[in-house]
Amino acid sequence: MKKNIFYAQSGGVTPVINSTAAGLIDAYKHNKKFFGKMYIGKNGIAGALNEELIDVDKENSKELSKLKHTPGGAFGSCRIKLQDPVKNKKEFTRILNVFKAHNIGYFFYNGGGDSQDTTNKLEKFFKQNSYDVKCIGLPKTIDNDLPITDNCPGYGTVAKYIATSTYEASLDVASMSNSSTKVFLLEVMGRHAGWLAAASGIIKDNNVHAPHIILLPEVLFVRDSFLLKVKKSVKKYGYCVIVASEGIKNSQNKFVSASSSKDSFGHAHLGGVAPKLASYITDKLKFKVHWAVADYLQRSARHIGSKIDVQQAYAVGYESLKIAKKGLSGVMITIKSSHLGKYNWKIKNTKLSKVANKEKQLPMSYISKDGFGITGKCKKYIQNLVEGEDYPPYKNGIPVYAKLKHPLVKKKLKSFK
Amino acid sequence: MKKNIFYAQSGGVTPVINSTAAGLIDAYKHNKKFFGKMYIGKNGIAGALNEELIDVDKENSKELSKLKHTPGGAFGSCRIKLQDPVKNKKEFTRILNVFKAHNIGYFFYNGGGDSQDTTNKLEKFFKQNSYDVKCIGLPKTIDNDLPITDNCPGYGTVAKYIATSTYEASLDVASMSNSSTKVFLLEVMGRHAGWLAAASGIIKDNNVHAPHIILLPEVLFVRDSFLLKVKKSVKKYGYCVIVASEGIKNSQNKFVSASSSKDSFGHAHLGGVAPKLASYITDKLKFKVHWAVADYLQRSARHIGSKIDVQQAYAVGYESLKIAKKGLSGVMITIKSSHLGKYNWKIKNTKLSKVANKEKQLPMSYISKDGFGITGKCKKYIQNLVEGEDYPPYKNGIPVYAKLKHPLVKKKLKSFK
Repeated sequence: MKKNIFYAQSGGVTPVINSTAAGLIDAYKHNKKFFGKMYIGKNGIAGALNEELIDVDKENSKELSKLKHTPGGAFGSCRIKLQDPVKNKKEFTRILNVFKAHNIGYFFYNGGGDSQDTTNKLEKFFKQNSYDVKCIGLPKTIDNDLPITDNCPGYGTVAKYIATSTYEASLDVASMSNSSTKVFLLEVMGRHAGWLAAASGIIKDNNVHAPHIILLPEVLFVRDSFLLKVKKSVKKYGYCVIVASEGIKNSQNKFVSASSSKDSFGHAHLGGVAPKLASYITDKLKFKVHWAVADYLQRSARHIGSKIDVQQAYAVGYESLKIAKKGLSGVMITIKSSHLGKYNWKIKNTKLSKVANKEKQLPMSYISKDGFGITGKCKKYIQNLVEGEDYPPYKNGIPVYAKLKHPLVKKKLKSFK
Repeated sequence: MKKNIFYAQSGGVTPVINSTAAGLIDAYKHNKKFFGKMYIGKNGIAGALNEELIDVDKENSKELSKLKHTPGGAFGSCRIKLQDPVKNKKEFTRILNVFKAHNIGYFFYNGGGDSQDTTNKLEKFFKQNSYDVKCIGLPKTIDNDLPITDNCPGYGTVAKYIATSTYEASLDVASMSNSSTKVFLLEVMGRHAGWLAAASGIIKDNNVHAPHIILLPEVLFVRDSFLLKVKKSVKKYGYCVIVASEGIKNSQNKFVSASSSKDSFGHAHLGGVAPKLASYITDKLKFKVHWAVADYLQRSARHIGSKIDVQQAYAVGYESLKIAKKGLSGVMITIKSSHLGKYNWKIKNTKLSKVANKEKQLPMSYISKDGFGITGKCKKYIQNLVEGEDYPPYKNGIPVYAKLKHPLVKKKLKSFK
């Protein structure tokens, strides 16, 4: 009897995670002789726990065809960290039972570092319980911080968005700076690694001076050196553009954004490194500052998709089924590229144990000497990943994105918990 | 002797103000038999005061050809409000002298309400001093708040950006809402009029529930009704997407963003209605909230240009020269459209005195009964303005924007002040 497939999306979504889903679904449709049904967890691994399995064959095929250019997690994602099976087997046993009940023989988990760790643990657990499931991790994170793989699907598109937005906003502030705003500040994601903030650096050339300052979590934030650099930039260029990672820390190893400020009602303000840095500049340098916080806008910016990123995300999904078909398990799909001459890349794989719970920060060779910018090597690396434009179709002036119905498979077990 | 042209950009820039400049420059190049030279004020009207006149013929023509798709104000803008000539003639006299010295016979001022008022006053001043200058106002404002004209160049592109970004972020939060973030909040520009926030409403249809709440400056902000609506949306849909105008006010007629909050160093926080609203939700409803502030990103988002907006902005520039050639003066260019059946539009003009210092807010018929959304009439109006995509060219993964040199004409007068 043919075994069924179970796929789930996990953690913070990306603008191209659905492209990976599309690749896997297409591969499944081309390999129906070999595989049984394909199920997708509703809201990620929660779908396995709750036995909420979306039946791909029952989704509208026209809507499924839009997946490749649809941002967000079309099947729902989750931020559930499963309990360690050594301490408490309940959740792992439940997943095993659901998989057995639905004849699942292939598990694809699409996520970042935590999810790769979960896939690794599940693989071992299934083995210990003598249940054969091929477990494959699919990389996904806009943070680009997974090891072994040369880059992560999702990063290229968000990098393209950040670089483009920084370029555009820098033209805006440059035109206002003579009599009004002198500083523009953009806060981007990146709690531990500065890959996203670094992406803004690729716009810099002989004619474009922005961004004048990039603040990376890899570099200690020192308020006085920062303010001095802002002052110098305004003096030299008439304005200053700053791109800051949300995760920058000061010498007490505290997040700069971790403000204890209260508003007039006594409510605590939620973080935001941009307003904090803006207040430093306004107080000390008296410049007019504009600030933006990209937040989800960056993470879902599929309208400015990087062609290479979309291709890689799709290939990660498509090729992973081939790898499962070969019988491999306990691996994560990786992208291996050659940066010699023309950029090219291949889909490979690595052992899950090598990637689980490891974070790849910007290497020192990618950060400029003064800590406020990126090197040529870093620029080249990022440029390769933002190359080409992949636009969604539009109707009535807005993008056409997939609208799925999530038809569920009939439950066979009692509800969990 | 042929008279020269003087053009200047004024106030907050838009993603398509350079498209208007491109239209005017092209018209000038096609009418060299009739007009003398074309000069552009460096940093807006400051260029006239400081006698810093950019010589268009000396700009690199390849770079000029990129103007139509370049955001920001390519020649520099300014936020200088000229002194009232009734109280103090100094500035107006200076402009008159500069215009005389450089044989200016045509003045095109590209701006919002304040700038139309300035153009109107200058026109009268030149007449009183028996100096013949045709004065023409070119509309520009992302706020879409100029009267008489059916819409303002700049609005369509930013509306497209806001609608698309809200749609994308809503897919993101929808996929996270099961176990994590329940509310996404986007702050957009609009201090007195809610046209920009309203634009997010066009994504709503039978399948798209977002945005659940639009906060407009035209509607009084009541914290309790707002929180109740958030709670209901989360209950019904699992999540809530909010788009807020920066200019919303409470019952004391105070800006909600005008926080008196201080951070841990005792520094005042700069405004930002998004973090404020987020803190209300976190405190009272305990939902996890993500918030974004679009700020300059929206105002410069040329990468997602509305085709109709770019065409109109260009036509405003191009047609204005024809109108000047006919000898008209003291007018502002307008867009007059028919919304019966297929959308079509024409360039017209109106007396400057009719538009100066007037603001057009959202009419009541455009706002839904509960005050948290837009009507079908409003949706239709906005859809017409975001229609079609006008993308810039890209190189190495980022847009190719104009890089001008600003070659100045030789000064003939002593420096001012």
